This record gives sequence, C-alpha cells and structure tokens, in this order.
Amino acid sequence: MVKVAIMGFGTVGSGVYEVLRNNRKSIMTKTGKDIDIKYILDIRDFPDHPEKDIFTKNFDDILNDPEVTIVAEVMGGLKPAYDFTKRLLSVGKSVVTSNKELVATYGDELMQIAKANEAKYLFEASVGGGIPIIRPMSQCLNANNIISVAGILNGTTNFILNQMISKGKAFDVALKEAQDNGYAEKDPTADIEGFDASRKISILGSLATGGKIDYNNVYTKGISDITLTDIEYASKIDSVIKLIGFFKRIDDNKCIVKVSPMVVSNDNLLSGVNGVYNAVMVEGDAVGKTMFYGHGAGKLATASAVCGDIVDIAENPHKHNTSYWEPECSLQILPEEETVAKFLVTIKTTDKNVSSLAAKIGIEEVIDIRPDEVGVLTKEMMKKDLLDAIGNSSFDIIKVIQVLG
Amino acid sequence: MVKVAIMGFGTVGSGVYEVLRNNRKSIMTKTGKDIDIKYILDIRDFPDHPEKDIFTKNFDDILNDPEVTIVAEVMGGLKPAYDFTKRLLSVGKSVVTSNKELVATYGDELMQIAKANEAKYLFEASVGGGIPIIRPMSQCLNANNIISVAGILNGTTNFILNQMISKGKAFDVALKEAQDNGYAEKDPTADIEGFDASRKISILGSLATGGKIDYNNVYTKGISDITLTDIEYASKIDSVIKLIGFFKRIDDNKCIVKVSPMVVSNDNLLSGVNGVYNAVMVEGDAVGKTMFYGHGAGKLATASAVCGDIVDIAENPHKHNTSYWEPECSLQILPEEETVAKFLVTIKTTDKNVSSLAAKIGIEEVIDIRPDEVGVLTKEMMKKDLLDAIGNSSFDIIKVIQVLG
Repeated sequence: MVKVAIMGFGTVGSGVYEVLRNNRKSIMTKTGKDIDIKYILDIRDFPDHPEKDIFTKNFDDILNDPEVTIVAEVMGGLKPAYDFTKRLLSVGKSVVTSNKELVATYGDELMQIAKANEAKYLFEASVGGGIPIIRPMSQCLNANNIISVAGILNGTTNFILNQMISKGKAFDVALKEAQDNGYAEKDPTADIEGFDASRKISILGSLATGGKIDYNNVYTKGISDITLTDIEYASKIDSVIKLIGFFKRIDDNKCIVKVSPMVVSNDNLLSGVNGVYNAVMVEGDAVGKTMFYGHGAGKLATASAVCGDIVDIAENPHKHNTSYWEPECSLQILPEEETVAKFLVTIKTTDKNVSSLAAKIGIEEVIDIRPDEVGVLTKEMMKKDLLDAIGNSSFDIIKVIQVLG
Repeated sequence: MVKVAIMGFGTVGSGVYEVLRNNRKSIMTKTGKDIDIKYILDIRDFPDHPEKDIFTKNFDDILNDPEVTIVAEVMGGLKPAYDFTKRLLSVGKSVVTSNKELVATYGDELMQIAKANEAKYLFEASVGGGIPIIRPMSQCLNANNIISVAGILNGTTNFILNQMISKGKAFDVALKEAQDNGYAEKDPTADIEGFDASRKISILGSLATGGKIDYNNVYTKGISDITLTDIEYASKIDSVIKLIGFFKRIDDNKCIVKVSPMVVSNDNLLSGVNGVYNAVMVEGDAVGKTMFYGHGAGKLATASAVCGDIVDIAENPHKHNTSYWEPECSLQILPEEETVAKFLVTIKTTDKNVSSLAAKIGIEEVIDIRPDEVGVLTKEMMKKDLLDAIGNSSFDIIKVIQVLG
C-alpha cells in the first residue's frame, strides 16, 4: 500500500481526496498500486467530514511518518508551502503540487533538493489545471528546440473576454458576472492583471529554455483596459482578443517572454478556446505546432493532474530524470518593446486619413468605425519603431495590441 | 555516450536521423546525454549519404552489438518488424516505434517481453504523429477513468474532407489532389477506408480500457461514399463532416469503439482541425474534456515523437512502469448498431412530409435542399431502432451519419 498525505483541504485538496477515494479501485486495477490517504493537513476543523480522523494540524505528523512517501502540496502560496516542501524533499519524500507560485519562484531549488535526496518534485497541475502540458513538454517534446509557446493560461480572464466578445458585455459587467459565478475572486487583481498567467508562462518558458525564467522579468499586462471597441476592431479583421502568455525564442541567445492581451485570428485554434477553458500552443523545431486544451482550473480537473503525478510516483518510486530547468537561463529576455509582430493600434484623430503615418510604418488595414479615432493594423515591425513613429507624428496612441503571429 | 540504431530509412527514419543529428548538442545540453547513431538498417543502398558507413543490411549487426541500447523501429508493417522487435527486447534492448500496425497487433505481447527483460517498448509516434498523446493518456490522466476518446486520426482523409468542405471539390477530385500533393498514397485504401484510423483508435481504446482492443473488432467505415450533398446537409446544421476514431465507455462492462464519418458541430474544437492536422479529444471522469492537436504525420513531426521516446530512455534506462494494457479487455465491445447518438439520416423520398416518420423517431430538424430526398436530424436514439423504424416505413435510407455528441 502507498500512503500519501494531502496538505491543504481547499478546492484542489478536496478534489484530490475525492479522486483518490473514488478511483482507488480502478487505479489499483490499472497499476497494481493501492493508494491510501493517511493524513490531510489543514489549519481548519472539519468535524463533519466522514474521515475526520485523518485530519491533522501538525505538519510533523506527515514529516516524521516513514510510511508516507508521497505528499500532495495543494496549499498554494509561498508560506508555509516552501518550507514544508523543502523539509519533505530533504527527508526523501516525493512532493507533487499545483502551486504555480512556488514552482515559478523556487522550482529550480526544489528540483535540486529532490534530486539530491532521490525524491521527486512533480508539478503537472501548476499550469493549465488538468491539461497535460508539463510532461508532454518535458518528455514527449524533449528532442525539439521549443521555438514558441502561446497559451490561454487563465480561465477567469478568458471567461470575461468571452462574455465581452460573444455577448457584448462591458468589462465591469463581465467581471461582476465572473465573480457571481465563482470564476473570479473578490479581489480579482491576480487574474485580471495577468499575474497568475505570468507565473504560468514563466514555468513554461523555463521548460522551453531549460533555464529559470523569473516572472519578475516577464512583462505583464492584463485585460482591465480592454474595451468593447477594441473587441470590435479585432472582429473587423476576423479576430478576437485573448490574454496570451507568450514565449518566443529569437535566436540561441535571446527570447521574448510576456503576458498581454493579443489579437488572435479566427483561423488560429486558440481563438475557439472559450469560457473557463485553457489551451497552450507549443511550437517545436521538429514537431511544428501542437496544442493542448482542457479545463484550466476547477476542483476535479486540477486534482486529475495532481493525482496523475501521485500515481506516476507510486508506480515509479525510484529516481526519474527529466530535464526541467537549471537555476540560470542562458537566454537573455529582450525588453518588451523589441517584440516584432503585427500590431492593432488605436489612434486618436479626427483626420481619418493616416497617409502621413503610412509613410513611416507599413499599414495593412485601416478600420474606421468610431468618430475621433481609427484602428490601424500594421505590417510586421518592432514595437519600439512603431511607438517612435507615432510619437513623432501628429497622432496620439490610444492603445497598442500585439497580433499573435 | 548512448548508441542507438535506426531500422528503416524511409520518411520517418530519415527524420529520426535528422532530428538526432541536428539537435544532438541541444539534447546533450538539456539532458547530459550524448546520443549517437551507430547503425541505420535498410535493404536499400545509400551510396551518396554523407554517413554511408553506418548503413547496414544485416539486422544481426544491431542485435549483437552490446553498445546499442536503444533501437528505433520505423520500418512499418508486421514483417520483419515484429520478429526484429521481439529479438531486440529479448536481449534487453529498448525499442521505440512509430509502427501503429505492430503496436495494435502485438503491442501487449511486446510490452510483456520488454518488462520481462527490463527493457522498454515505447510508441508515442504510433498515434497522431508528433502529437503527445500516448504519454499524456497513460501517465498524466492515469488517475481518471477514461470516458470517451474522439480523434481525427488520419491526415489524408482530413485533407480530403477539408477540400470538399471549404472548396466544394468532389471526393474524387480532392483525393486526386491529395495524391498529387503526396498526402495520399497511390493506393489510398488504408487511409480512405478508415483502416489506418482503426489501428490508432484500437491503441487509444486499449490505453483507455487497460485491455487490448483488437482492431478486427472495431467497426470501420471510411469516407469514400461521402458526397458534397452530405457536407451541405451538415453545414445546414452548423456542422462539418470529419472521419472520427471513437471510443466510449458505456458502463463498467461495455464500450463502443468505431471509425466512421461523423457530423461535428462547429462549436466543437475538432471541427476546426483542418488540413493534415490531427487532434484527439479525451474525456476523463476527473479532468473533463482535454484535446491534443498537431501534425499527425510527416517526417519531422513523427520523428519528434520517436526521438522524444529515445531521449526519455537515454535519461532513464532503468525500468519504468507505465500502465498500458493487458492482453485481454474486460469490457465488451457492443455491436455498432447499439450506438446511442443523434444521427443525420438522408432519406429517398418525393414526399417531403416526414410526419409519418416523426411518429416513430424523434426528429429535431428536417433539411430540405434536394429534390427526391430529405435530410433528417434525429434526437438521441439507438441506431438499431432508427434503422428498424425507417425499415418499417415507406421511406428508403440513403445514408446514416452519426452526430458526435
């Protein structure tokens, strides 16, 4: 019998409990491993829980129990998750987690501690909820040089944008609806300002480059200033606006990593990823473009990924080498203004004739649907050059949104 | 240094050579493993190849060389691949393959031989070309009971259907174009009649159930009788026609496995999978719906999956337990006529009033776009009941196409 502990009995933790209990028999049939939950750690009381006896408030119960070999850390946040994880790995217990904050911040260190103690630190659930993405990138695609990653990594913002696009609701109204439906927190900052997505793209960028991408270095812009007008401009060029976590390898030495709203063509499968679904498009030099899609959050979906890692370790408790990432990234992250792409630019002007601008920047299309402003789809160019050209013109920029290539 | 051999220097084999050579340095940087190709086995001569010295026609060179620990079997077909693979695994060499025919036919036996000899038999490339699907299903989703699988598993037929749908070309014209572009063989039977897809869904069905699904028991219908009229009927209900490899768990004891053209709603992401791309939708009881998308064939994409398996074994040469499938499936495969779904039925009739039929079967929509026939979208029902009802009526069935639910 394999004894596991669950640390944190919130949404994900209760999902892990449910999946391990409900599918215990079928997991045993498939793998020959009987996985039992010995402890659930939480500071709260659950007096009415049918298995209230396995709850504990004392981390040492888990740390000091030699029977427990695998621990699911689904508390979230850095404190005390970082300290707990370090101590568990240090005594050779394997840890699986959904904690993107911890993986993005201390993942490199924790992987090294795991390796040194012949334990494993697995984090399939940290990006994209239930979507298999960590293992596919780190194992299935490991013969590729990863060229780019473009992901819808946050379900809250995708739900909000979706309501704006399909139902014409303004941002504030859509946000309120997301909150009422439990898709957005009372304080929605981490989601709508892109911080959640920045942790996730920093993990995927680290996998793609083999070196830690610090999210503090990831340009991060959310969706709170996206308007129905922006969405209408996008629709005029047969596109939608999505919040994209983006990584692109420029050459052997440089890359771009960012989170920002982007214009996504309806030809791109990502445009059809709606509601609270997530999807990640990964491009490798051999495989070309691949996409991974599914529930990006939620109790059972996230638990599916956590439990997948648990079952994998139960089947293979010995050391398993996988190339995740080193503490240092050999690629330099370019400033965001050096992004080369097409852009959708909104310009404040009563003079809809932008020919003076066309002399300075390549223009593909002019979209004239509002008084006093105009939308311009540029040809591919560097953002810096675009900003300079308009700065030196008589036009004022309202907004610049990158077009996903 | 890890020494590998490639058996078969066709499209996939030359791709494996290219990826291992081109990405040798980056793979070494990522994994610390220097992977070198010691032999390429092929019955043909390649006198102009820059590494002509590593070619051999003698399988024993590979079998008897203790330096060679991993062999890529990319010959295809059962003979001599089956015999070669057995002998390699029997002496403890690991084998990776793109050979769907072999995996679907003898996979269970080969996995057991591998296990008994502490070798590995990996086959990520056997389904969906470069798309990570085998490892995600067998590892990432292994805490789930897989409820259903619906895949666009054959690029040739998807290209042909795509040309019919988007350009209004007839089947014969689209097939000729596919052949001219190298997307279809001179003898296209295996693709267009669904046999290729049946091997692939039998592999995915085996993964889903944990027991071998013999493709001889998989109802298989191709696209050669699909007409532009069928496509027009589908478009009237905002759908397209795709060739779908389909698995569905009915209960703990029964399942449906089949390959057939299906009506796919434009709301379903699979509808947007165009050209030679493949995609697989997998539904688990915890994770919900996930989708995996990418190049389903082609030199480098398929090589990406083969090489991913090679790198994985190079990093982890020791035994690794993964739950693939047992020789016997505990689930009974129901006869195809017991499929419960909505159906698009075309009926030969000059009397467009189908009210006499509506008394016997639930009808959602009648599509009247041709003289002497009518399209009927049924409510959800068993196919057998549908056929019986129409058989007992005054109407003649032209075609019945399942709607993907």
